[in-house]
Amino acid sequence: MRQDDMPELRQNPLTGDWVVMALQRSHRPGADISEDTEGDRRCPFCPGNEAMTTPEIWALGRKSGKANSPGWKVRLIPNLFPALSPQAEEGERILGTRHSYAGKGHHEILVQTPDHDRYLKDMSAGETRLILDSFVQRYRELAKEPYVHEITIITNAGKRAGASLEHPHSQIFTLPFISPLMLEELAILEHRGGECLLCAAAAEAAEDGRMVAENESCRAFVPYASSYPYETLFVPRQHEPYFERCDDETIDHLAELLLTVLRALADIHDDPPYNLYIRSAPCDTGDYPLFHWRMGLIPRLTTLGGFELSTDVIINVVSSTQAAGELRSASAEREEQ
Amino acid sequence: MRQDDMPELRQNPLTGDWVVMALQRSHRPGADISEDTEGDRRCPFCPGNEAMTTPEIWALGRKSGKANSPGWKVRLIPNLFPALSPQAEEGERILGTRHSYAGKGHHEILVQTPDHDRYLKDMSAGETRLILDSFVQRYRELAKEPYVHEITIITNAGKRAGASLEHPHSQIFTLPFISPLMLEELAILEHRGGECLLCAAAAEAAEDGRMVAENESCRAFVPYASSYPYETLFVPRQHEPYFERCDDETIDHLAELLLTVLRALADIHDDPPYNLYIRSAPCDTGDYPLFHWRMGLIPRLTTLGGFELSTDVIINVVSSTQAAGELRSASAEREEQ
Repeated sequence: MRQDDMPELRQNPLTGDWVVMALQRSHRPGADISEDTEGDRRCPFCPGNEAMTTPEIWALGRKSGKANSPGWKVRLIPNLFPALSPQAEEGERILGTRHSYAGKGHHEILVQTPDHDRYLKDMSAGETRLILDSFVQRYRELAKEPYVHEITIITNAGKRAGASLEHPHSQIFTLPFISPLMLEELAILEHRGGECLLCAAAAEAAEDGRMVAENESCRAFVPYASSYPYETLFVPRQHEPYFERCDDETIDHLAELLLTVLRALADIHDDPPYNLYIRSAPCDTGDYPLFHWRMGLIPRLTTLGGFELSTDVIINVVSSTQAAGELRSASAEREEQ
Repeated sequence: MRQDDMPELRQNPLTGDWVVMALQRSHRPGADISEDTEGDRRCPFCPGNEAMTTPEIWALGRKSGKANSPGWKVRLIPNLFPALSPQAEEGERILGTRHSYAGKGHHEILVQTPDHDRYLKDMSAGETRLILDSFVQRYRELAKEPYVHEITIITNAGKRAGASLEHPHSQIFTLPFISPLMLEELAILEHRGGECLLCAAAAEAAEDGRMVAENESCRAFVPYASSYPYETLFVPRQHEPYFERCDDETIDHLAELLLTVLRALADIHDDPPYNLYIRSAPCDTGDYPLFHWRMGLIPRLTTLGGFELSTDVIINVVSSTQAAGELRSASAEREEQ
């Protein structure tokens, strides 16, 4: 990529929010600018097609054979159409109300499975753990880079959830600064004088009948102010700012809860599109003892309209308590079968 | 509606953002929870079907005949499935991290035309003016209510932009407090010490080649940090906090620019779904001389994914300058025909 084509972060002066201008991304397969593009129909994430992707960063599960050959169980690659690039020069520019930052960072893909049609909800606990373990490993590696201040890992499942390729995969993004959303939460936590909001919210969810599932290490609940129908937060019981410090037991238990909730959601709503995200404390040089890492599930059952996009106020049509109850029932029905 | 079913605003303790819990809305036609519902196929917004809607607040253009009869040009009705209700009791509740506000307010529909298939871009300047005049009139009326602190008017055009009914219409929402997004902008403006951000941004757009169209009263430009491909702001030249103080000439000129841009967008991208919004200074008892009202156009050409929903950072794949250039060219081509 030429330096001119490098991604750039621009700040909206009216809101303080950031936009990634990633002009290369309009060329990616399935990018829905105007019409769907139908180019090469071979899936670049399937085994045998490794040469279609940028060379892998690493892969797990390959017992023998060279890099970029089949035999892997999960495979980590740089995004061919990155929203951020490690080759971008660092730099900030301010000119009048125009404030930009070079889009220096990483945008990577974790291919979750060699099987094109094997969705997360249908995976075994072991397969799910391997994916979560991969997230932890990559989190630790990327957090060491001096230009990485925040890391977000997300999964888009289904076209209506933003997935441009069907083959199950996750995406890892780094930011060269702490995002306004994170700064906002850190400021709120500071203002509360040390009490953890997520620990308090989880206890309230139990009181209110909004707990969906829990085990020794983790709890899954629908938040009081859920923005989306069936939105679920997965929160470790032990207060811990950093996802990347997860021990094996927590990963096991998180995998178990994730599968329980994804399967219940699929049963209630005929396998809807959804997003998953993991948020961990910033990985710059600061210390963030008040933050509590979490995973979030956002089912995409409704469409955001002009009210939501222009006010940031979201309309939710399913009560948090009802959503939690339905997820619990669906999960119980599965267990009985 | 029973008081128990009244809409409620709930605040996300982690972000400060608000969610409207409007549980009745899942019953509305076309609400896309799970599957599309196909009920009565008659359009409630078409002339002759007035009895299908809640009784009208007012209608313009009817020369004779009773309320709720045909003959109108635009028709204002309360939303049958409101996100906010004037009947809700006022009240705030805080319990631990749970912070709620009664959803007291208005959620109304302006049916833009009696013609089911007449979209905004195909309307005459006169028809468009009548719609904008209706917005101004209703803004003025609602701003008088003591429980109305902010008003947003939006248009969802197309199912992928959140429209649940095809017949062209806009929606008017009021909030019982000043939204966090507005508070953020007011704080930024205060911090800048009096310089208007929108006036400055419009001048920069002219320098950068991001101006799309302009006339004596208004300018339309693609913002530097546009969040969406072809996003366009419509800003009056004269600094004015309140949309509802618009004079007739500004409305004429705004209608002209809006039609120019909507037609150019439709030509470039085969009539894509879009949202329109109008933001005006709060209408509580405060004074907001630094705010500058605006209309915004958000084309819905891309799908928000997990990265956007979990970080509030949006990825845009079309450069602001390129978008403005394409809109200008498409507009010039139309004029030549």
